[in-house]
This record gives sequence, structure tokens and C-alpha cells, in this order.
Amino acid sequence: MYTIGIDIGSVASKAVVFDGEKVIAKVILPTGWSPKETGEKILECLLKEGKIEREQVKTITGTGYGRIALPFVDKKVTEITCHGVGAHFLDPEVRTVIDIGGQDSKVIKLEEKGKVIDFLMNDKCAAGTGRFLQVMAHALEIDISELSEVAEGATPKNINSMCTVFAESEVVSLMAEGASKESIAAGLLQSVANKTYSLVSKVGVENKVFFSGGVSKNSLLKEYLGEKLGVEIYTSDMAQFMGAIGAAVIGYK
Amino acid sequence: MYTIGIDIGSVASKAVVFDGEKVIAKVILPTGWSPKETGEKILECLLKEGKIEREQVKTITGTGYGRIALPFVDKKVTEITCHGVGAHFLDPEVRTVIDIGGQDSKVIKLEEKGKVIDFLMNDKCAAGTGRFLQVMAHALEIDISELSEVAEGATPKNINSMCTVFAESEVVSLMAEGASKESIAAGLLQSVANKTYSLVSKVGVENKVFFSGGVSKNSLLKEYLGEKLGVEIYTSDMAQFMGAIGAAVIGYK
Ligand code: SF4
Repeated sequence: MYTIGIDIGSVASKAVVFDGEKVIAKVILPTGWSPKETGEKILECLLKEGKIEREQVKTITGTGYGRIALPFVDKKVTEITCHGVGAHFLDPEVRTVIDIGGQDSKVIKLEEKGKVIDFLMNDKCAAGTGRFLQVMAHALEIDISELSEVAEGATPKNINSMCTVFAESEVVSLMAEGASKESIAAGLLQSVANKTYSLVSKVGVENKVFFSGGVSKNSLLKEYLGEKLGVEIYTSDMAQFMGAIGAAVIGYK
Repeated sequence: MYTIGIDIGSVASKAVVFDGEKVIAKVILPTGWSPKETGEKILECLLKEGKIEREQVKTITGTGYGRIALPFVDKKVTEITCHGVGAHFLDPEVRTVIDIGGQDSKVIKLEEKGKVIDFLMNDKCAAGTGRFLQVMAHALEIDISELSEVAEGATPKNINSMCTVFAESEVVSLMAEGASKESIAAGLLQSVANKTYSLVSKVGVENKVFFSGGVSKNSLLKEYLGEKLGVEIYTSDMAQFMGAIGAAVIGYK
């Protein structure tokens, strides 16, 4: 018997099949304009990917901002709870989860059993989220996935504006003044690290720290953030699926 | 004998000639990339406009964010002080000044003689500033100067995101869903009114209230803001020159 967890994020939708012990299939798709259509599509892909039939699925649990649009789920659980359960499943020693997604960022504090004891979320301001990096990559004329690579080894150029709109103008000016893309990219990653640092500081950091969400693939940002926080930060290839994993695990209980 | 006040704002630069009693000439220019060059240019234009020689000018006072770049000024005074003096000069009954500029917004509280007793400024977040309206006008494919006219008489569409970046996406979605430009424009002006309201609330409002800065030309925004604050809001054709007028008046003293 299997369970499925579907996490409809603002930018990316993630889904996994769980067999009670491990994740046996995973799918990620852009959320696009319709969380409902994407939800149906991702379920279809996931069943194929896992080579299972709908009838073998005990529970489908939805999470993420788009979960309300999913008509076919058995349960809907907040992303905070799912992230907590998912992080605890991936590594039971995790006590702090830092999640930077496409349009929000959050810090979650967990107790030993993976229960959420505190959290803080920013979904009001694009600064410090994937959206900030997306706008900046566009200004730098590179792909968002190349930011870390481009910035690697460069001395970060200080970016004064925290605001996405003002920082974008600053980047354009810096380029016109002849600053290198490398140093600007490094400066932008530091800006996100700083913004994240101030969010994390309000909740407090406790080891082990896990970095999740789409932006966690950015290795240099992870490094900068670890330096600012003075701790080692862990991540995983499955980091982007943490909410979906949590949802699937909850469905199993 | 004359004095000159030059206010180099982030978007527009304003300058006036003052004869001790009234403003006899005024010039406004885009600030562009070089506050220094713009300062020199605006001084040149202003002398021509006022038909006066440089020798007839007793003092030149600089204000606004770009004042530091002006080598030829005799005095540099903060924009908060200049706005206070300028508002008091335009109307001695003014006790609250709401200034929305190209990239910032501020609320200034004055005592009877025009001295600043309190103020609050937002220059960190593009929301609630001219920049917000500029981005939104672009998304609506209209000119920023047309916003009020387009919105007039429409039922405002609620804009959920306060953030400029997220609101821009929201506007694009609303248009794709078929919402009218008129209702979106009205909703955007209400968003700026709401953001301004929360800034004003922190300082407290005292009559008479004067609306200045480039965005004050937006009549519908003035109306919305007045409704939210529950007071009548005054403005003037000279509202955009208030900082420059204050600087010129200070130079005369
Ligand atoms: S600071 Fe910039 S990015 Fe943040 S809410 Fe304001 S406009 Fe948006």
C-alpha cells in the first residue's frame, strides 16, 4: 500500500510516492497558471513514474499554497507541518529548517520528534526569495541556475538595496559602470543570505540546520548563509521534495 | 537679491528662484544618471527662466538625495527640513505633510512655525512610492500620468499583494482573466493609499494635511487617501517644488 504527497508551490509543484519506508517515485513540474490542472497532471505522471495504479494508493495528501485547488486529495495539511515531518523523515537530527522557495521563505524549528515548535514565514516581500534571484538573473542575462557557478570565487560586490525593485536598478547601474557579472552575482547571493539571516535570527538557530526549497540547490548561497549563521548547513537532493514527503508520510500514519 | 533652492530627487530634480516673498521661476528636469550634471543643467535653465544673472543670487541651497553631488551650492540641507519649511511657506496652517516621491515616501509633522517635530520615511521598499505606480502603469500599458484618469469612476479591483514584484504579477493575471484596466488602475491607487495610510498612522495625522511630491498630481489617489484618513487633503500646483522652495527660503534667512 502506498501514499502520495503533493506539494503545489507558487512556482514548482512536487509530488512523491511513499511505501511506508522510502520514497519510490518523485515528480516535479512548474505550477503554471492552474494549480488544479497541474495537480491532476502531476498525479498522472507520478503514477506512471512509480508504476502503480490509483487503487494501490491509500491516501493522497495535498500541501503548499495551491492545495486548496486540489479536488482529488483526501487530506490537506499546511506546508509548515509537512516540512517539519518531511525534514524529520530525511534526517531525524534536524532541528532548524530554512526553506527558500520561489516566492517565499520560512524558518521552522523542530523538537526531537519532528513536531513544529516555532516558525516564521515571509511571503509578503519578494526580497530574499527565489523571485529576487530570478529577477536578478534576468538583469544579469544569465539563467537562475547559473548564479552560483558564475559567482564562485568572485569577491562579492556590495548590493545596497534589499528591495527587489531597487536592487534590480542597482544591478543595471553596476553593470553599466563596468562591475563584473561574477562579483554582482556573488553580491546578490550575499544579499539573499543576509535577508535570510535576519529571518532566521528572529526564530533562533539550533543544530542541525537543513536548507530546503528550490533555492537550496544554490551551493554558494548555502555557504554564505552558513558563514553568517556560524553553523554547518545540510541539504539533500531531495530537499525540494520535503513538503511532499512530509505530506506522504502524514498520509501513512 | 535672490536665493535658489535645488532639490535633486531620485527621479525628478526641481529648482526655484525666490525673491524673499515669492517664487519667481521654477524648473523641473529628470534627474537621470548624474545628479551633478543635472544640477548644473537645472541651474543654467533656472537662471534663464528667471531672467537673472548668477551674481544676483545670494545663496544656492541644495537638498534631496542628490545634494551631496552638487559642488556649487553654498548650503546643503536635509529634505525633511526643507519640506517642512516649504510647506509652511506655501500654507502656514499645514501640520502634516505627506510626500510621495519617485522612490520614497515620507510623513512630516510640523508645529505652528513650520519646525519639524516628527517624521517617518520609507525609502527601503518600492511599494507605496512612485516606482510602484511606474511599474504598474507599464504592466497596464498606460502612462503613469494617465492612472487617475483611467481609474476615475471605476470600482477598484482588490490587489492582494503589497509588494511591487508580486503585485505586478497579480496585475498581469488580472488582465489575463479579463478584469478591466479601469478597475485594476483604481485598485492600484487604493493599494498606494493603504500603504501610505499605514505610514501616516504611525506618526499620526493633524490638520491641515498637505500632499506633496510627484505622485500628488494623482487626484484619485488624493481622494482615496483622504477617505482612508478621514480628513481633507490639500495640495498645490507647486507641491512638487516644496523641497526646493524650502531650500530657497532657508537660504534667504
Ligand atoms: S521591499 Fe521591494 S521586494 Fe520587498 S515588499 Fe517592498 S517592493 Fe516588494
